[in-house]
Amino acid sequence: MLTAHKIKVFQSLDKKKFRQKYNLFLVEGNKTIKEIPNSHFKIREIFSLDPSEIPTGDFDTTKITPKDLKKISFLQHPKDSVAVCELGEEKFLANLPIQIVLDGIQDPGNLGTIIRLADWFGIPQIICSEDTVDLYNPKVIQASMGSFLRVNVVYRDLVEYLTHSDAAKIGTDMDGENLYHHKFPEKFNLILGNEGNGMRPETERLLTEKITIPRFGKSTESLNVSMATGIILGQIFSHKG
Amino acid sequence: MLTAHKIKVFQSLDKKKFRQKYNLFLVEGNKTIKEIPNSHFKIREIFSLDPSEIPTGDFDTTKITPKDLKKISFLQHPKDSVAVCELGEEKFLANLPIQIVLDGIQDPGNLGTIIRLADWFGIPQIICSEDTVDLYNPKVIQASMGSFLRVNVVYRDLVEYLTHSDAAKIGTDMDGENLYHHKFPEKFNLILGNEGNGMRPETERLLTEKITIPRFGKSTESLNVSMATGIILGQIFSHKG
Repeated sequence: MLTAHKIKVFQSLDKKKFRQKYNLFLVEGNKTIKEIPNSHFKIREIFSLDPSEIPTGDFDTTKITPKDLKKISFLQHPKDSVAVCELGEEKFLANLPIQIVLDGIQDPGNLGTIIRLADWFGIPQIICSEDTVDLYNPKVIQASMGSFLRVNVVYRDLVEYLTHSDAAKIGTDMDGENLYHHKFPEKFNLILGNEGNGMRPETERLLTEKITIPRFGKSTESLNVSMATGIILGQIFSHKG
Repeated sequence: MLTAHKIKVFQSLDKKKFRQKYNLFLVEGNKTIKEIPNSHFKIREIFSLDPSEIPTGDFDTTKITPKDLKKISFLQHPKDSVAVCELGEEKFLANLPIQIVLDGIQDPGNLGTIIRLADWFGIPQIICSEDTVDLYNPKVIQASMGSFLRVNVVYRDLVEYLTHSDAAKIGTDMDGENLYHHKFPEKFNLILGNEGNGMRPETERLLTEKITIPRFGKSTESLNVSMATGIILGQIFSHKG
């Protein structure tokens, strides 16, 4: 049942503090919810306009009205269902050939888009600095379009991680080598920095290779970080295609 | 002066109907506003928290309060200034080597991002189907980050345009040739379709070449159209880099 207490709890889940307190986050939309049982995430409870559309499992599904759905949804235009899920347990995948590393990404849309890109290119893990936006932020989950179910996202002290990584550390830099001429090694970290400020100096200091995406036009802005990630991954995988 | 009448007019400019009626649209933020005098767009009037930050020219600049700025801004967090500009005159650039063509793009953020990409790669024009979101939509202008000043965006009947274009017509298709193996001709149209439905059958019928971005992972969603555009352009320009 959707009690007043539950509504209050769910509404608080847009804040990391409360997601951690209750160990819960929300997933919206049947399309993504149907994929949860194939992931390591556990559904606690589902609220749906039409429970017949929802997979069954070891959880309750409650039919609710559009009015109640609006109360618990974080979307401007709520979809069909909301699944209340438990936060995933942290695991760490070591020794991956390509490791995406994010230093201080703040925009939830950017993290979500980069998770979606990792999923597209079959990159199993993203390592984020501790100040990167939280994976379970409703806007990150939404922007990832279900890809958070397949891409492992972990938070680490990047200086510590990179210092101990024996793979190349490749980052973007305006004065780096032309992306299209760069020969990527067998195993590397691809490090992307904050939207406005790039990566922190202590991260940048650990880079072993610097690349740049050449600009052919007169654009006065750099590319958005998720677009840059897409173009770089596209180039890397062009040699595997 | 910022009269009540002007406030009412400016607030109506989020609708295409009123932008056309008044022949006006808004540009927000000093960074972009400073670039307008280098473009073919004409500033009618500027409202700014600090006019000393603004270029001078053949227009009035009025100092306004944050409270008044909030009234005329379309941004959730208004910036420093709003420029009231006249809609650009339609011109058409013929015979470009690379011509981006958009069929029914609805999301303003996607059009803005694709304009930004065109600017980055030095592609001077985007041809949109008549049902593509309007260039002067405040969210398109915002997402383009000033690139609308350098990229010519025109609206055309695509069937008519493509039928008469003597360049190759290349579109994305799930069953198309691997992007990374495709040899792009000297001169071509790159056609991207609507976010949910792809391109219309009457446009698709005119394609001469089909490409696909290979998926390496288990992602269940296709790539966002602006991300797909970025990856394809990245690949095309990798041969020019």
